[in-house]
Amino acid sequence: MSGSTFGNMFKITTWGESHGAGIGVVVDGCPAGLALGETDIQAYLDRRKPGASRYTTQRKESDSVEILSGIFEGRTTGTPISMLVRNTSQKSSDYSEIASYYRPGHADYTFDQKYGFRDYRGGGRSSGRETIGRVAAGAIAAKLLAELGIQVTAYTQAIGPIGIPDPECPLAVMDIEEARSNPTGMPDKETSLKAEAYLRQCMENLDSAGGIVACRVSNMPAGIGEPVFEKLDANLAKAILSIGAVKAFEIGDGVRVSSANGSANNDSFRMKDKEVTKATNHAGGILGGISDGSEILLRAHFKPTPSIFQRQDTVNKNGEDITVQIKGRHDPIIVPRAVVVVEAMTALTVLDMLLQNMTARVDRIRQFYSKIE
Amino acid sequence: MSGSTFGNMFKITTWGESHGAGIGVVVDGCPAGLALGETDIQAYLDRRKPGASRYTTQRKESDSVEILSGIFEGRTTGTPISMLVRNTSQKSSDYSEIASYYRPGHADYTFDQKYGFRDYRGGGRSSGRETIGRVAAGAIAAKLLAELGIQVTAYTQAIGPIGIPDPECPLAVMDIEEARSNPTGMPDKETSLKAEAYLRQCMENLDSAGGIVACRVSNMPAGIGEPVFEKLDANLAKAILSIGAVKAFEIGDGVRVSSANGSANNDSFRMKDKEVTKATNHAGGILGGISDGSEILLRAHFKPTPSIFQRQDTVNKNGEDITVQIKGRHDPIIVPRAVVVVEAMTALTVLDMLLQNMTARVDRIRQFYSKIE
Amino acid sequence: MSGSTFGNMFKITTWGESHGAGIGVVVDGCPAGLALGETDIQAYLDRRKPGASRYTTQRKESDSVEILSGIFEGRTTGTPISMLVRNTSQKSSDYSEIASYYRPGHADYTFDQKYGFRDYRGGGRSSGRETIGRVAAGAIAAKLLAELGIQVTAYTQAIGPIGIPDPECPLAVMDIEEARSNPTGMPDKETSLKAEAYLRQCMENLDSAGGIVACRVSNMPAGIGEPVFEKLDANLAKAILSIGAVKAFEIGDGVRVSSANGSANNDSFRMKDKEVTKATNHAGGILGGISDGSEILLRAHFKPTPSIFQRQDTVNKNGEDITVQIKGRHDPIIVPRAVVVVEAMTALTVLDMLLQNMTARVDRIRQFYSKIE
Amino acid sequence: MSGSTFGNMFKITTWGESHGAGIGVVVDGCPAGLALGETDIQAYLDRRKPGASRYTTQRKESDSVEILSGIFEGRTTGTPISMLVRNTSQKSSDYSEIASYYRPGHADYTFDQKYGFRDYRGGGRSSGRETIGRVAAGAIAAKLLAELGIQVTAYTQAIGPIGIPDPECPLAVMDIEEARSNPTGMPDKETSLKAEAYLRQCMENLDSAGGIVACRVSNMPAGIGEPVFEKLDANLAKAILSIGAVKAFEIGDGVRVSSANGSANNDSFRMKDKEVTKATNHAGGILGGISDGSEILLRAHFKPTPSIFQRQDTVNKNGEDITVQIKGRHDPIIVPRAVVVVEAMTALTVLDMLLQNMTARVDRIRQFYSKIE
Repeated sequence: MSGSTFGNMFKITTWGESHGAGIGVVVDGCPAGLALGETDIQAYLDRRKPGASRYTTQRKESDSVEILSGIFEGRTTGTPISMLVRNTSQKSSDYSEIASYYRPGHADYTFDQKYGFRDYRGGGRSSGRETIGRVAAGAIAAKLLAELGIQVTAYTQAIGPIGIPDPECPLAVMDIEEARSNPTGMPDKETSLKAEAYLRQCMENLDSAGGIVACRVSNMPAGIGEPVFEKLDANLAKAILSIGAVKAFEIGDGVRVSSANGSANNDSFRMKDKEVTKATNHAGGILGGISDGSEILLRAHFKPTPSIFQRQDTVNKNGEDITVQIKGRHDPIIVPRAVVVVEAMTALTVLDMLLQNMTARVDRIRQFYSKIE
Repeated sequence: MSGSTFGNMFKITTWGESHGAGIGVVVDGCPAGLALGETDIQAYLDRRKPGASRYTTQRKESDSVEILSGIFEGRTTGTPISMLVRNTSQKSSDYSEIASYYRPGHADYTFDQKYGFRDYRGGGRSSGRETIGRVAAGAIAAKLLAELGIQVTAYTQAIGPIGIPDPECPLAVMDIEEARSNPTGMPDKETSLKAEAYLRQCMENLDSAGGIVACRVSNMPAGIGEPVFEKLDANLAKAILSIGAVKAFEIGDGVRVSSANGSANNDSFRMKDKEVTKATNHAGGILGGISDGSEILLRAHFKPTPSIFQRQDTVNKNGEDITVQIKGRHDPIIVPRAVVVVEAMTALTVLDMLLQNMTARVDRIRQFYSKIE
Repeated sequence: MSGSTFGNMFKITTWGESHGAGIGVVVDGCPAGLALGETDIQAYLDRRKPGASRYTTQRKESDSVEILSGIFEGRTTGTPISMLVRNTSQKSSDYSEIASYYRPGHADYTFDQKYGFRDYRGGGRSSGRETIGRVAAGAIAAKLLAELGIQVTAYTQAIGPIGIPDPECPLAVMDIEEARSNPTGMPDKETSLKAEAYLRQCMENLDSAGGIVACRVSNMPAGIGEPVFEKLDANLAKAILSIGAVKAFEIGDGVRVSSANGSANNDSFRMKDKEVTKATNHAGGILGGISDGSEILLRAHFKPTPSIFQRQDTVNKNGEDITVQIKGRHDPIIVPRAVVVVEAMTALTVLDMLLQNMTARVDRIRQFYSKIE
Repeated sequence: MSGSTFGNMFKITTWGESHGAGIGVVVDGCPAGLALGETDIQAYLDRRKPGASRYTTQRKESDSVEILSGIFEGRTTGTPISMLVRNTSQKSSDYSEIASYYRPGHADYTFDQKYGFRDYRGGGRSSGRETIGRVAAGAIAAKLLAELGIQVTAYTQAIGPIGIPDPECPLAVMDIEEARSNPTGMPDKETSLKAEAYLRQCMENLDSAGGIVACRVSNMPAGIGEPVFEKLDANLAKAILSIGAVKAFEIGDGVRVSSANGSANNDSFRMKDKEVTKATNHAGGILGGISDGSEILLRAHFKPTPSIFQRQDTVNKNGEDITVQIKGRHDPIIVPRAVVVVEAMTALTVLDMLLQNMTARVDRIRQFYSKIE
């Protein structure tokens, strides 16, 4: 079975392993006429690059993107956009030992069970480098959404037990520039410093930390999403859970709704400037799987990096209990570099459903085609 | 866009509105040779039937299923299985008033925004009755999984703030018979009684409650799920979020991983009876999107029923702020009747990915076809 | 694997066997706001009804359609439209003998090889009755296309060696009313009478005849179809070959292009009334997989009805060579009743690709959404 | 809409334009464990390379393939196989003139209508170079089919009016080595020489020729293909019509069935060596959309190369009637280089449906998974 394709109208297919020749993505279904160049893509890729701080791996990866097709005279042509990032910094020798055993918390064992063997170098296809294709494609989706006036913004909400104050506050009052410049991705300087201290402690303990990435979609039109299996939130959940290390997804109030009462959880509708608005947004911008015109708010819970430097119990390929100590360069936390991945997957999902929604009404289809002829 | 189809190899398409002629589902891709009759389906449908207790709507709906195709001499033929449940108890008169305004927490407003108008009778397509098709199809998936030795079991973990003790304990020590017979769906009599008291209080307050449904997949083989976008947990997340009123999804430790350390979150591998096993199961049975052979554990967080009998603020179709008081018969909680829906969606997802996995290895394909010829 | 779904945006799923409870289809993705009722559907179904002439089976089948969902106050709601035609005239006793052997030219043997057994009553799922679902869905597609000014018209071009004169002439000069009223479906009375004489001869010989159905799409906008695998003609080919008994598909000049020269086969472009037009239409309205604004012309070649009353050699389920003589009521030719099926499949394909095309350009998407907000 | 992906289980996504950086394909869903290297792919690509004879363009294109992912230690890993062929010989200056007008028989006009503008260099995405991705992927499919004992063999049946004698004879008595070595692709030396003479005449006339490619699938197991919309022949028809310049598709007797009688067209079943066989093969190996175990035989009708050197009428982008004379290097016939493309698309389709068929029966699924655990 094939499982490297995401989306329906705006469809991406990623490929590549940590230590193969490169990583890439084909974007099929990008509408024609979007101004696009490699710098648009590179700006997003740079946000997930390692080496930016002491909390990310010190590997040097330039991760320069080459657009191989689908652009002519600076604009998308409507045909597939193929993008390639060559792997340059990988040394297979670092990984020879782990071929013989299964690292706890990694996909080594499950890959062997599924495929009979695995590319054990650097995690192969299940490496974090796999997200390069997602981010490159997400950059295009985000640019197209921006053309429609829609913004997607992700940031770190928590690192381990350290969370930002007032995580439900409007995006407008958050300091997103701060989030983009500090090493944690948090939109609050003080919390970020606390989180850094926590991470340093984890590193001293030869341990790692988890965290929460939040993402908002602003200026979202109402009516996007399909009412049954292709609910907007269902597709967002799949998009987010498809990112390695995510173990939980929340929309709006998320897990808190299970202990809430209806009187507190329902959002009242109110007229404001002749528009229907909601007095609160417990729903996170989605009702019945369809956007309601208010801000979409989702959260992804990332587990701690499974590669820790403490001794761990595991088994080897000969079926023997052993104890191992993982070496190499590993981020003590996944979250800061995952912020842009969450943003990319959210943008891809929202755009795809915006495109799918164009066929919802006969009157609009008639209007669309009456103008063409 | 079409959005009423779920699955790839085992594909279901549901249809029907609350107050139309009926509700149904077409199951396409069910393998040939499964013994199947209407009683297999009815047993599952009866688990979601209303009227079973004072905490579910007192509407009388027999919800009798008719199998219209795909069965011959008591076995599935490999061709589509069409199932129909006629609507019998609906009175459109009950719903005439709500045509004029948007109920808070419901999809009335978003349907109007998307489609230009809506079938306002009983929620139309966004009614809870839509899940009848899911449950009917899920009954077939569960029966087929049982043929492969796999069990899917859902139950209520919490109702409002009242949760069962030790929710992570092995399924084997839970009292699932208790869960099937009491009105809450909880596998613990004492907690169930407390939850009932809580629900009675909610009803007195003209309010409603949320809750948590947990689901386990037992005896799951390792190697199921695809490593990137079609991760087993990503598809489960989509399946579960596609159920109305679900606002969060957790696999394994779920939201707790974001505050955990790697040393605590990693599951060690250990040999046991010459099999690779895990000492713990924080991962919930899935590593890198692929089943690891241990029990799968997921959780769905349901919001409180949005139809409450308190006065609520909203707007009407003329764009005026109004106050409304919803009438009719509504469950004070969705969870007890949703247990079987979670079970159905989980079974459908797991089966679909088991079928997809059959093409993962050349050696197994060769063996498969060498036997046929 | 599931294979009973056709289309991407306008998606249909058919189900049902010849002698089961009924035949049906779910149309998912029909845009909201189309005026639609059962009479719209019945008009198409009546065109494929048997018993209309001595050249079609004398079985009495009322084939009355019931719409079960997706319509509210006379208009489509955007949610799935489920349609059901109950089987009423089937007598299983007629078919008990053929359970034991494989009819030449039928799918009996291949079904047994695929599924291990088969519903042998009346051909089961491979019966011509399977097309009821296609025609019911096609009626909706045709109505929606008509709203966009597009007409799909099929007719019989040839029956056995008897073909209409000038099959390439413009549709406008053809007598389609004649085609709709005579028993052959030919738009030419004289040829139709000759074809009837030929069919009577076939029946006297206990034999059957093949034929050609042609189909035109008029007023088609340019730009529809995708340039690589989802070419408009590729999808039409699949749609037409998916009809039982079709063994060849032609677009435009079809098989004649292989013996033609480029100078004769190329269609010159010329300006006419300030529009780009083509001086000829050898291409059949499609260039590079994309509609060019001229009439689409395709042809389907149907094999003779495999059920003939002559003695035939075959094998039985015990693996013995036998000779059989098929009984029952069978059309001596498939073509006249297949005309509406070709029309339906063409309409479904063209509509689906019209909907898919709406996302081709950024400027049009921006315009579409700027109007909504 | 995206349209550059083909297949369901064995899924390929092609990308690239004639004059962009390169052409490529991502194969997703290739089973793990297939021995594969670049030489396997290159052998197929070399069969479509230009410059091999005076009847193909004299452009020098090395078309060397690089495998970028999905292979480890000489075997497929089950993850996506990305392949890249750099464009090396393209000079954009050759094509600057055609930017201003629409070449007859080409997709220039339809691309402009669809996308608003086009990459006019060498046909852009609608160039014959687009088939490089298909052939590279088809090489993998063919190798995997060979592992299952299945061979796919295409050859030229006719060039213009010159056809091989006895085109229905068994593949075994055809001289496929001759077909692989002569410039026409015909499995008959004498006919090939006649065809070459015909092509020289066309070139003198500044004209081009069409032709027929035939393809056989040998040792095909019975039971492959789905009975309704996903018929094996329907998918083959789509695959073949998706190749540029194909205007007709035939399976088995193809267009001849429409003038045949049932008594002549039906294939009798007979026992032979305790196997069910067919006395004849008018059906081309497929009954009811499902393979019957006999050889599959299909034909593709290619139109003449639209680029001819005679003066032609057309219009320019300013909407003026003009006369043009196309320059450059163009094959006088598409067919010889298209043989391997037909073979590739057939292999891809057959393999995909073989994989899909693995889920057809409960007993086989049970057996499959009982062995795994």
